Amino acid sequence: MKKLINTVDAVVREQMEGMALAHPDLLRVSLEPKYIVRADAPVAGKVALLSGGGSGHEPMHSGFVGQGMLDGACPGEIFTAPTPEQMLACGLEVNSGAGVLLLVKNYTGDVLSFETAAELLHAEGVAVRTVLIDDDVAVKDSLFTAGRRGVGGAVIMEKIAGGAAEAGYDLARLAALARRVNLNTRSMGMALTSCIVPAAGRPTFTLDEAEMEIGIGIHGEPGQQRMALASVDEITTRLASEIIGDGAYTRVVHEFEPATGEWTELTLVNTPFQPGDRVLAFVNSMGGTPVSELYAVYRQLASICAAHGLTIVRNLIGSYVTSLEMQGCSITLTRMDDEMLRCWDAPVNTPALRRGV
Amino acid sequence: MKKLINTVDAVVREQMEGMALAHPDLLRVSLEPKYIVRADAPVAGKVALLSGGGSGHEPMHSGFVGQGMLDGACPGEIFTAPTPEQMLACGLEVNSGAGVLLLVKNYTGDVLSFETAAELLHAEGVAVRTVLIDDDVAVKDSLFTAGRRGVGGAVIMEKIAGGAAEAGYDLARLAALARRVNLNTRSMGMALTSCIVPAAGRPTFTLDEAEMEIGIGIHGEPGQQRMALASVDEITTRLASEIIGDGAYTRVVHEFEPATGEWTELTLVNTPFQPGDRVLAFVNSMGGTPVSELYAVYRQLASICAAHGLTIVRNLIGSYVTSLEMQGCSITLTRMDDEMLRCWDAPVNTPALRRGV
Repeated sequence: MKKLINTVDAVVREQMEGMALAHPDLLRVSLEPKYIVRADAPVAGKVALLSGGGSGHEPMHSGFVGQGMLDGACPGEIFTAPTPEQMLACGLEVNSGAGVLLLVKNYTGDVLSFETAAELLHAEGVAVRTVLIDDDVAVKDSLFTAGRRGVGGAVIMEKIAGGAAEAGYDLARLAALARRVNLNTRSMGMALTSCIVPAAGRPTFTLDEAEMEIGIGIHGEPGQQRMALASVDEITTRLASEIIGDGAYTRVVHEFEPATGEWTELTLVNTPFQPGDRVLAFVNSMGGTPVSELYAVYRQLASICAAHGLTIVRNLIGSYVTSLEMQGCSITLTRMDDEMLRCWDAPVNTPALRRGV
Repeated sequence: MKKLINTVDAVVREQMEGMALAHPDLLRVSLEPKYIVRADAPVAGKVALLSGGGSGHEPMHSGFVGQGMLDGACPGEIFTAPTPEQMLACGLEVNSGAGVLLLVKNYTGDVLSFETAAELLHAEGVAVRTVLIDDDVAVKDSLFTAGRRGVGGAVIMEKIAGGAAEAGYDLARLAALARRVNLNTRSMGMALTSCIVPAAGRPTFTLDEAEMEIGIGIHGEPGQQRMALASVDEITTRLASEIIGDGAYTRVVHEFEPATGEWTELTLVNTPFQPGDRVLAFVNSMGGTPVSELYAVYRQLASICAAHGLTIVRNLIGSYVTSLEMQGCSITLTRMDDEMLRCWDAPVNTPALRRGV
């Protein structure tokens, strides 16, 4: 196992210590329990955005803490959900009184922890709402999921909701916007190689030299299909076609209602992309693929979007939602409206995204 | 060979096409000959900064083209120097009349091309100066170099000189500042794995599962020592100790003198780091190492700098000078003064670095 680490047990803690040392102007880091908050949290009058999940996907989420994006992030151990206790402590620290919005990637462990955390925060008198992220069109259910997985859409939601929170949206309006981002976002990824979880010490799965996996999850969980290695144009066409061709996806989600302290069932539907849509195109590295190759993906993606009548109005290209050192990429498309564009363009100042501050 | 590419011949061109499609607001891209310039080049009254080198190190240099950094970048084929013809065409396009400063990484092929380009631009009536980047303390001479190699220091020089050019420095003052950045910068890198050059189709070198290479070059050229894989603390200590412990390094460089059109010999000396120095600490991924591991490097680096009386006043952590998909890292330290800090902090708006614009 070739990694820049000391002992397996210390990986997450030492990386968090590194972040604390590197970004004292942006972040405050708690190691017991583990969470990272904005240096200036709580921000008076502002709804706080809190996300989290297993480590190993950096810079998501801790790299997105800061002005214009998240107020707090709770990292679990690698590929392991954080605990409700982490989220409770983090939520209490970022809450200014305007409430806390929990952004939850759809993995069974994360969902359970966030649900408990929502109830614990509510019991402490904090106004809490939750929004689910389930943008991965590759598979309906998976090893870690009932329903679709949450992947690249998290970054887009955190940036857009972050801009809106900064602009003074209240908790209900912010939750509605974040939900709309999710309903307009679809993603799909692929792997050229496996990653190695430090505690396991060996590849999560094996791919032959001439194989790749399409529809892979960000924990190395199986995707749609193992197949012969193809060209970047073929790979991009496959991912983009499934994203653009995805039909109306209907599911029932549970969101926390702060007025009653109860969970509400909502039936939500993604409507398919249509010619004329304006989209944000996000090309993401799984961690081990260099940015140069992502531009070859973007080249073909631009051509496919044009052929489908989709206008790319913004893009994001880089390593944002990773699976340790896995080689491969994912594509995310978000249908944008004027409000979402305004929030996307708003200033941001975090370790992993900086612009206009 | 697992890469997101089409054919080997098309790699660089298609990645440049992707950049052109992704960043029309920031860049203009020429494919014949190959170069990338700021969308608003030439910028009236401003000295133009031009760099270049072999491809495969992205985002360096093309990702650093834009406001506050480079005016132009000339990519060669992978790990191959660009031609003087590329640099001539690029230099003519970015020159506003205030002159062009060529930032040259010290590799034999690059130096030869840039020297010819300087003379060709001079013959066209362009005021040209050159500054050499030779910050790698690992080896004195190497496979591709007489003298020390140019590595991570290029990013620091391009950002600081870019801020100064934007602030109106004339050509001579800008060259003097860039030279000072180089004389205050030292770097060293290491590899956990080899990279694969597409045209070769196999790893440049082989490392056993339990081996690493210390002092590696960014083309996979041999370093100081192949040794047993060590912990991140041990690796960081080794790299940082060689950087901080490096003595006075003296060499003769040739810089182009625009008044005479001749090459001037200059004897330049790096003075060693001293307790009390303020430094910029740059932790860089070789391409395949995820950012999470870089924070573990930074954690130990911060401790070593403190032990040597060096105060880290700025940092940069991420994939900036890569060697395709190689796993590993490099460390760069630059002794900063107030002028360099002011230029480092200036706004920048490029594909790979954005801040404050």
